[in-house]
Amino acid sequence: MEPAFVNMEKELEKYFDRLWPICRSITGNGLRESFRILQEIIPLELTEVPTGTKAFDWEVPKEWNIKDAYIVTPEGKKICQFKENNLHIVSYSVPKNESIDFAELKKHLFFREDLPEAIPYATSYYKENWGFCISYNEFKSLSQEGEYKIFIDSELKNGSLTYGDLLLKGDTDKEIMFSSYLCHPSMANNELSGPLAMAFLYKKLSSLKKRKYSYRFILAPETIGIITYLSGFGEHLKKKLTAGYVITCVAGKDAFRYKNARRKDSIGDKAAAHVLKHSNEKYDIENFSIGGSDERQYCSIGFNLPVGSLMKSKYQEYKEYHSSLDNKSFIDFSCLAKSVEMYYNFCRTLELNEKYKNLYPNCELQLGKRGLYPTTGGTWGIDIENTRKILHLLAFADGETDLIDIAEQRKLSAHDFEKEISILLEMGLLGVEK
Amino acid sequence: MEPAFVNMEKELEKYFDRLWPICRSITGNGLRESFRILQEIIPLELTEVPTGTKAFDWEVPKEWNIKDAYIVTPEGKKICQFKENNLHIVSYSVPKNESIDFAELKKHLFFREDLPEAIPYATSYYKENWGFCISYNEFKSLSQEGEYKIFIDSELKNGSLTYGDLLLKGDTDKEIMFSSYLCHPSMANNELSGPLAMAFLYKKLSSLKKRKYSYRFILAPETIGIITYLSGFGEHLKKKLTAGYVITCVAGKDAFRYKNARRKDSIGDKAAAHVLKHSNEKYDIENFSIGGSDERQYCSIGFNLPVGSLMKSKYQEYKEYHSSLDNKSFIDFSCLAKSVEMYYNFCRTLELNEKYKNLYPNCELQLGKRGLYPTTGGTWGIDIENTRKILHLLAFADGETDLIDIAEQRKLSAHDFEKEISILLEMGLLGVEK
Amino acid sequence: MEPAFVNMEKELEKYFDRLWPICRSITGNGLRESFRILQEIIPLELTEVPTGTKAFDWEVPKEWNIKDAYIVTPEGKKICQFKENNLHIVSYSVPKNESIDFAELKKHLFFREDLPEAIPYATSYYKENWGFCISYNEFKSLSQEGEYKIFIDSELKNGSLTYGDLLLKGDTDKEIMFSSYLCHPSMANNELSGPLAMAFLYKKLSSLKKRKYSYRFILAPETIGIITYLSGFGEHLKKKLTAGYVITCVAGKDAFRYKNARRKDSIGDKAAAHVLKHSNEKYDIENFSIGGSDERQYCSIGFNLPVGSLMKSKYQEYKEYHSSLDNKSFIDFSCLAKSVEMYYNFCRTLELNEKYKNLYPNCELQLGKRGLYPTTGGTWGIDIENTRKILHLLAFADGETDLIDIAEQRKLSAHDFEKEISILLEMGLLGVEK
Repeated sequence: MEPAFVNMEKELEKYFDRLWPICRSITGNGLRESFRILQEIIPLELTEVPTGTKAFDWEVPKEWNIKDAYIVTPEGKKICQFKENNLHIVSYSVPKNESIDFAELKKHLFFREDLPEAIPYATSYYKENWGFCISYNEFKSLSQEGEYKIFIDSELKNGSLTYGDLLLKGDTDKEIMFSSYLCHPSMANNELSGPLAMAFLYKKLSSLKKRKYSYRFILAPETIGIITYLSGFGEHLKKKLTAGYVITCVAGKDAFRYKNARRKDSIGDKAAAHVLKHSNEKYDIENFSIGGSDERQYCSIGFNLPVGSLMKSKYQEYKEYHSSLDNKSFIDFSCLAKSVEMYYNFCRTLELNEKYKNLYPNCELQLGKRGLYPTTGGTWGIDIENTRKILHLLAFADGETDLIDIAEQRKLSAHDFEKEISILLEMGLLGVEK
Repeated sequence: MEPAFVNMEKELEKYFDRLWPICRSITGNGLRESFRILQEIIPLELTEVPTGTKAFDWEVPKEWNIKDAYIVTPEGKKICQFKENNLHIVSYSVPKNESIDFAELKKHLFFREDLPEAIPYATSYYKENWGFCISYNEFKSLSQEGEYKIFIDSELKNGSLTYGDLLLKGDTDKEIMFSSYLCHPSMANNELSGPLAMAFLYKKLSSLKKRKYSYRFILAPETIGIITYLSGFGEHLKKKLTAGYVITCVAGKDAFRYKNARRKDSIGDKAAAHVLKHSNEKYDIENFSIGGSDERQYCSIGFNLPVGSLMKSKYQEYKEYHSSLDNKSFIDFSCLAKSVEMYYNFCRTLELNEKYKNLYPNCELQLGKRGLYPTTGGTWGIDIENTRKILHLLAFADGETDLIDIAEQRKLSAHDFEKEISILLEMGLLGVEK
Repeated sequence: MEPAFVNMEKELEKYFDRLWPICRSITGNGLRESFRILQEIIPLELTEVPTGTKAFDWEVPKEWNIKDAYIVTPEGKKICQFKENNLHIVSYSVPKNESIDFAELKKHLFFREDLPEAIPYATSYYKENWGFCISYNEFKSLSQEGEYKIFIDSELKNGSLTYGDLLLKGDTDKEIMFSSYLCHPSMANNELSGPLAMAFLYKKLSSLKKRKYSYRFILAPETIGIITYLSGFGEHLKKKLTAGYVITCVAGKDAFRYKNARRKDSIGDKAAAHVLKHSNEKYDIENFSIGGSDERQYCSIGFNLPVGSLMKSKYQEYKEYHSSLDNKSFIDFSCLAKSVEMYYNFCRTLELNEKYKNLYPNCELQLGKRGLYPTTGGTWGIDIENTRKILHLLAFADGETDLIDIAEQRKLSAHDFEKEISILLEMGLLGVEK
């Protein structure tokens, strides 16, 4: 049933290496180029939203593109070269070609004293400005005398914001959504892990012969991209969404972390907690809070969608976050593959989970005459685990309790009952309450 | 108020000794003979249900009777003699008189390697077959050469299944039910403890001068007997039953074990937990699960009755279960008597428990002028525990909270308030919310 | 915003010293004199309720006044002198002028063997009687021979019971109530701490420029006074009361103790628990129980008002309770001032607490364009705690969740959000759900 990846980790790494050097932002050609590479795996349909388009309290900003940027020190040394590391330039920096003194320059330099070797990541999307990011070590070595030449070959003009989405149809129009973002320059866990996991998850789900749910995949620049998306499709999601997940920061080496939706009744959260509990992985679950990714929009009061998020090395909790140290050596492709599998298992559980109903509810069924019970009773009682599971299902399947809850009463996972449910459905002993 | 048993334990033992040697099964004359002995204590009305009668997914099987059975070894030794221990024959074995070799015999022998001295208990009610049960020690000594003579003088024919029931009327037609089973050959905890406890519980309840509830007693072969009973009286029980208990395995030396009904709102379970908590006995409470006795039928989804079960040495949890070692030395008649008392206390609590209502709800009553309060206040505050209990009742009896919950708020048992309730009802200060 | 007490502790002590020597009871001139002193701080309106007035199950008793009382021993020594300590006379003792022997006297003497130096406190309001309270040490020294002269210059006659109340109006007619009692002779924690705390709390609340709630203050003799009050105003309180507190025993050195209302949904209890949790004070919370002060009446089933009680050194839990040792050295004026502050904070929280509603519920607001967000994102994420609080409010203010619950989700107190709420209300981003 599952698609054969010759080696998922190797494939993930191959795509990672191609996406890594591209300078992405919330708009622009780097973003488009990244989408095109990902389309080789997941056929996202791209939409271009023009500059100035309103979306609730927001507006699509100008499109930003950049060719080059650097600083020349008084000693004539070229530093903060965009072509060496695209994190050196503050995203959305306006064009610049002038000489200034150190005091003025300093106002436009960003560094982190707590992480002296790292180039930090900074943006100025909504206020026209410019700046460079520099390691603290390099910053300390700068001369305070003389003129610095600033060169930024960027362009800020009316254009458009690009996002991609895709609906993988299933037997019903109830949707499970996966959402990730594409907008950061060269960072690994907090950028590329999300789109890559989503793309490979699509590959697994699309190869299933049968899907109860339709699966929606959304990839957009963080915040503004999803706000734009929701201004168009938010009402649709309110009607159709059964569960959703924001895929972000899924390639780190830390234990799994699951963040619940704001609303407390999400079946997506319930399935996630159930799958994590019955996995052999370490994990922790936390409640919704501000400070996160696009679940902030999905879970905003007006939409209040059942959207959670599974992570491995959560944003803001690892020191390399939002810096040049969030790179290929920070992440682990086996962790990324594990995250794909875990999300896939959420889906499998959602597919199997139903409020099943025993269609012969008065007293036990005589399983013996149906070949589902050992014929000699007595000493050995019920000695076949399959029979026990069948009896358990028939005893608890009241059409009001879902499979996850029924399974938990026996300290098993929903999937431990997959075979028995299939037998009972086929024999007409169990139905599904709609 | 309570009937005087000169010595309940001695009486229990006397009846136990008479019932012990009889070979019972789910039908047949041994079953009828056992009913007749128990009728000396509890006047159950017997019903005969003919072979072939349908009951939901089941059908009453043929009636089985047996006179003798044994095996003659190649050495001419008579073994597995039914007349020595009726567990030797697999229940419902068809008649047989033939010689076979060891290889063939082995397919029909049941033993337990984990309990080498015990004769196990086995049945084949719903598939025509035959077999002998033998201790593993004896099995190991059997010669693998030569012919074995098999002799089974049994009869399997159209007949009937016998069950008994009785309604002990109270002031209302709301019922408390006790159900036990009669169908195993010579076993003690997992057979005779249940019917004996039920019979003596009947004796105590029938001698009460006043009963709010009517009490129903059902004794039938396990599973098929109760399924047959429910096919006739299940709808009646759905209308009338306030609480019910399956009495099984109540004579062992282990701590009390209470198993809750499947539904979560059973007042019977609540009363049981409350009484156990305020007893000085060790106990544990577990949720409903498959693998049990007739609560499997009462709690099936279609009936969903509030039926739990109190046990002492629970089925499947003691190694002697379903073997010749579940005998008189395994059980303890003082434990059996304790179980009778505990069930009786469940009834007393259910009788006393009500949603009482303070009929003078505005501010405290002036208890002093009614002689219910010390006349000099001040230093000593309320110094009489009776007064405290009266004040507590009047403060919490809002017509919505039952006595059990009111008592628990003071960490007392419902019965600790028996005298005060009687005073307040008599003085017209308290009413009962219907 | 808060009134400046030059020194609240000193002022409390000054009034304490004036009120201390007065012999109060549930009626009489001592009670009236005490009211007049308190009216210097809180302008309570006094009501006189005539002897014989019915109030539910009760009746206003005769008015009692006393001028003098003592015993002369056979040796001619004057003991138990009312003028030395008004606790010596049992409250409501009838007039007496006769000589009796020790055996007869002993029936009318009250002492505490467990506290041999203390004069206990005793009353006989509802049965005509007389008595003296004496330390156990002094009692032991009494001669058992000879005549004792008893002198009680008291008067028991038709008169009236005095209570005081006051409504401090706010913007709405929803009321927060404070209730205390005045009826014990010279005792400190269990008498004067309550009325003094109430009076000073009034001073603080009355100086607020704006109050959402109206504040009701009730001061009356314990039990009979409040029952009388409720017979007139109980129905009004059922309609208007949002929360109430009985102020009693608030000047001791023990940790704070909060006693919940009988009903479980009191916003007053919720606010109290929230404020205590976020204070740096030690505290404990207990459920409603009989044995207490006038919450017994407010929480009686018929009224079922949301009335709790905060204490410091709770009645019946300190050995000096109801004796001459509950005096000025037992209490601490800084503790009393702390209690005033704590009750004041309950009010502040109730004033601020609302079900706020984000008026722009779809997706996050763009705080940056409103000056509420740092303009350069990226490395530092949201780096201003104010911004975080604003985002938190907007994310959770769904019009159904109150501020206390929203604050607790961030482990903060409601008041930690005071400034941010005010900004958001002013900018029209937040509304109040009515």
